[in-house]
Amino acid sequence: MQRYFVSNQQMTENQVIILGEDATHIKKVMRMQTGHTIVCINQNQRAVLCVLDSIDNTGVRATVVEELTEKTELPIAVTIAQGLPKSDKLEWIVQKGTELGATGFLPFSASRSVVKWDQKKSEKKRERLEKIAKEAAEQSYRLNIPQIHDSANEKAVIDLIAHHTASIVLAEEQAKNGETSQFSKVLSSLTEGDSLLVIVGPEGGLSESEVDHFQEAGAIPCGLGPRILRTETASLATLAAISYQFELMR
Amino acid sequence: MQRYFVSNQQMTENQVIILGEDATHIKKVMRMQTGHTIVCINQNQRAVLCVLDSIDNTGVRATVVEELTEKTELPIAVTIAQGLPKSDKLEWIVQKGTELGATGFLPFSASRSVVKWDQKKSEKKRERLEKIAKEAAEQSYRLNIPQIHDSANEKAVIDLIAHHTASIVLAEEQAKNGETSQFSKVLSSLTEGDSLLVIVGPEGGLSESEVDHFQEAGAIPCGLGPRILRTETASLATLAAISYQFELMR
Repeated sequence: MQRYFVSNQQMTENQVIILGEDATHIKKVMRMQTGHTIVCINQNQRAVLCVLDSIDNTGVRATVVEELTEKTELPIAVTIAQGLPKSDKLEWIVQKGTELGATGFLPFSASRSVVKWDQKKSEKKRERLEKIAKEAAEQSYRLNIPQIHDSANEKAVIDLIAHHTASIVLAEEQAKNGETSQFSKVLSSLTEGDSLLVIVGPEGGLSESEVDHFQEAGAIPCGLGPRILRTETASLATLAAISYQFELMR
Repeated sequence: MQRYFVSNQQMTENQVIILGEDATHIKKVMRMQTGHTIVCINQNQRAVLCVLDSIDNTGVRATVVEELTEKTELPIAVTIAQGLPKSDKLEWIVQKGTELGATGFLPFSASRSVVKWDQKKSEKKRERLEKIAKEAAEQSYRLNIPQIHDSANEKAVIDLIAHHTASIVLAEEQAKNGETSQFSKVLSSLTEGDSLLVIVGPEGGLSESEVDHFQEAGAIPCGLGPRILRTETASLATLAAISYQFELMR
């Protein structure tokens, strides 16, 4: 079933109006007609089954026929603070991370980030990542579109640590030294509704001083096991492990 | 430290000879000189630290200076049977799956696979995937290069089920119906040295009859939680969960 995120204003108790690119998608890509059904989700995670009533140039109108009670959000709100990686890796991290349940992404300029984003590039990238997150959220049956934070620096990541129940920093050196149980200890300390910040370095990893600063601010250094994961694999492995712990081991 | 896989013939008790593309890599890409150190791993997972003795057109000779006792292989031997996906997704599955510890990959033509491989294409693809697996194994500190099986069909996958301690088939319908604990039950039944076959469909998923056939042969249908994962995300999430269970929850 095709799914669309709409604003709260677009969804009343009994009716949904779909506008803009989503309306075009329904008309031109899916070639739907009145009588066809879709799922719409508003910003309060209200998901409803709707039947299309009218399709014209002003938009698509649909009537709510069923409230859906599916729960597809990860029980822990996970934000990925990702040191800016090369090429299109961030797009891929956002796409896969959205499927795997992340709540938000904060790209930050780490000392070993090769890529630099100026204000203009940063805004353009954010728009692109928001589009990828929205599509991935629809495709994976999410009830929330993950938030793409403005690209930031080390200080902004440190500020975020205080706003999360727990924070971990993935540190390759820790992984090399056989540190393997810390991550599972942190997960075991969390319960539904808690939040977790996961800090991941760029290709060259985080510098020692960055790890120190994050640690001083309260983040716990964790390894992900004996193999060395690429930066774009690390956050996804973390999210998959969180899903396993909180959704699959029940 | 740069790592290279060599055949057992290339590694004696005290010496290693590096040939072909790896020798070129040492000379031309890494621009190493005598006295520099590398790690070499043979087909018996013997990993040794070596010092380069001579670098010439016939190859690179190195002396063993230390036996390394690192254990970087997943305790469970996991083979991914992957329904042929579109575009370059298989390359990516092999790269990420190698980092995450897979022992082997079997691409198979599923009923909903859009892509078709003939004999010639299949061989070319296998060579390309073997190269990707080798590079990813070196980069991620593996002791084994995962095996790339010849591309196969449903019957070959069924034959493989009998050769594994346990087999699971990732079935999207199961995921939609809220089946979440089966996967963790299967993992809990395994111990170090066991083998697991993970069967993943292509973009459109496996057909009902394919799931039935795999199930009749002994594979257990499992879901990976409430969100719908793309085919290329599913095997990676599975491997990350296996690593979490067997390497990180200790």
